[in-house]
Amino acid sequence: MANLLKYDDIKVGDSDSISKTISESDIYLYAGITGDFNPVHVNEEFGRNSMFGSRIAHGMMVAGMISAVLGTKLPGVNTIYLGQELSFKAPVRIGDTVTATCEVIEKRDAKKIIVLKTTVSDSKGNTVVEGKATIMKAE
Amino acid sequence: MANLLKYDDIKVGDSDSISKTISESDIYLYAGITGDFNPVHVNEEFGRNSMFGSRIAHGMMVAGMISAVLGTKLPGVNTIYLGQELSFKAPVRIGDTVTATCEVIEKRDAKKIIVLKTTVSDSKGNTVVEGKATIMKAE
Amino acid sequence: MANLLKYDDIKVGDSDSISKTISESDIYLYAGITGDFNPVHVNEEFGRNSMFGSRIAHGMMVAGMISAVLGTKLPGVNTIYLGQELSFKAPVRIGDTVTATCEVIEKRDAKKIIVLKTTVSDSKGNTVVEGKATIMKAE
Amino acid sequence: MANLLKYDDIKVGDSDSISKTISESDIYLYAGITGDFNPVHVNEEFGRNSMFGSRIAHGMMVAGMISAVLGTKLPGVNTIYLGQELSFKAPVRIGDTVTATCEVIEKRDAKKIIVLKTTVSDSKGNTVVEGKATIMKAE
Repeated sequence: MANLLKYDDIKVGDSDSISKTISESDIYLYAGITGDFNPVHVNEEFGRNSMFGSRIAHGMMVAGMISAVLGTKLPGVNTIYLGQELSFKAPVRIGDTVTATCEVIEKRDAKKIIVLKTTVSDSKGNTVVEGKATIMKAE
Repeated sequence: MANLLKYDDIKVGDSDSISKTISESDIYLYAGITGDFNPVHVNEEFGRNSMFGSRIAHGMMVAGMISAVLGTKLPGVNTIYLGQELSFKAPVRIGDTVTATCEVIEKRDAKKIIVLKTTVSDSKGNTVVEGKATIMKAE
Repeated sequence: MANLLKYDDIKVGDSDSISKTISESDIYLYAGITGDFNPVHVNEEFGRNSMFGSRIAHGMMVAGMISAVLGTKLPGVNTIYLGQELSFKAPVRIGDTVTATCEVIEKRDAKKIIVLKTTVSDSKGNTVVEGKATIMKAE
Repeated sequence: MANLLKYDDIKVGDSDSISKTISESDIYLYAGITGDFNPVHVNEEFGRNSMFGSRIAHGMMVAGMISAVLGTKLPGVNTIYLGQELSFKAPVRIGDTVTATCEVIEKRDAKKIIVLKTTVSDSKGNTVVEGKATIMKAE
């Protein structure tokens, strides 16, 4: 395994990210996993007549990319996910390329807890999801 | 569409839920959608030697069932998801049956905002995820 | 579980529906599940030269939305599916939004059997599948 | 393409079949495609307490294997599916191996229509779905 950061290796200010273009199949599979068949996600007619003007991705699916950064990049393997705060700021549409970024903003040495600012933005620079993750780094 | 609750129909104390047995395919597809290939989710050898003793589901995937309740049951169609706070309390393993429950705890009439307590529990009664959702009910 | 209609709650004339935009990924996953790799579904070259002018969805996949209405909406949980008659009337293409509607047309009280008219239509108002479902409502 | 049966090649009594072991992922993906999250399919706790004693496959998913035989084997390419009658006789569980068989029982030469007896059975010899397909053979 390449990524073996330890708690002491991680500094406030460190950041890492993952980018992906959101596909229709992502949305459809996610609907199937969670049961979230809200028509704004899977019914283009409904989406077109909604305030969004098209189908949109599930916010929680897009936010799942934050977990991908935490669990595979920063801090990577042996991250215990304790909590996540999320604000959904703007919709993500099929074909949008989004980037989830996590930046260390606080370390609590007693319990090896790390707090990260978590942001998902689209390729036009809009923030689509923002929030804060709290994790513990096991080793 | 059957589910057409309006803001005024919804009372503090109302609740609804969705239940599902989490499958290996759920976890593998979710890994593929989000890029979260943390070995604790997709590597059984790694999981067996981890503090969890087996592969576990992604916390954010399980939390996605909260969004399913909000978007398809309570309040249902035309829910605008504003924010979500999550605490991950216990792991979910392949084969566990989990129930996501949302209960209205506050209404803010000026902006038609509704706050819900959101809980995911397993069939042994353990809370696996808890938190709070903030939504706006468009009509 | 919210949906707990009992046999006696259901009246002739009751109806409910589910709508969805059919995606390429729906068709491809369905082909993989059933083994139905008929080229008219998964080969765009073949589809373009066929009488349909494009790939089309599997009729039985579209008809599966009838089962979704029966099992999750009307009558919902504890529906025993006894039989289904189907006529395939028109093709469904990738991107079409279809609505499956079930309407109660007969009740047979002795065995708690319910017969429903089942129709799938597209957003231009064409009937794409029509038929009749026979179910038993356990409680 | 290997399979190029013409209408005149097909005789009453001809039959062909496809077999498959039904997996949990088949059921979960099918739930996601159709929206059919009836708990008897995706909730093992619910299934265990139901009359079936476990989760069961969607009947319409199993019946989709009939379409696979028609569209890829007998008659194969250029089959126009006109109608299907189905009776659901017994449940299919995760791990069951089922065989869908189609047998020509009638030909209507004027419109090149073929009627087939359609049977899905499990490996213990139980009939799980039976019915009749009506197709037209384009060439």
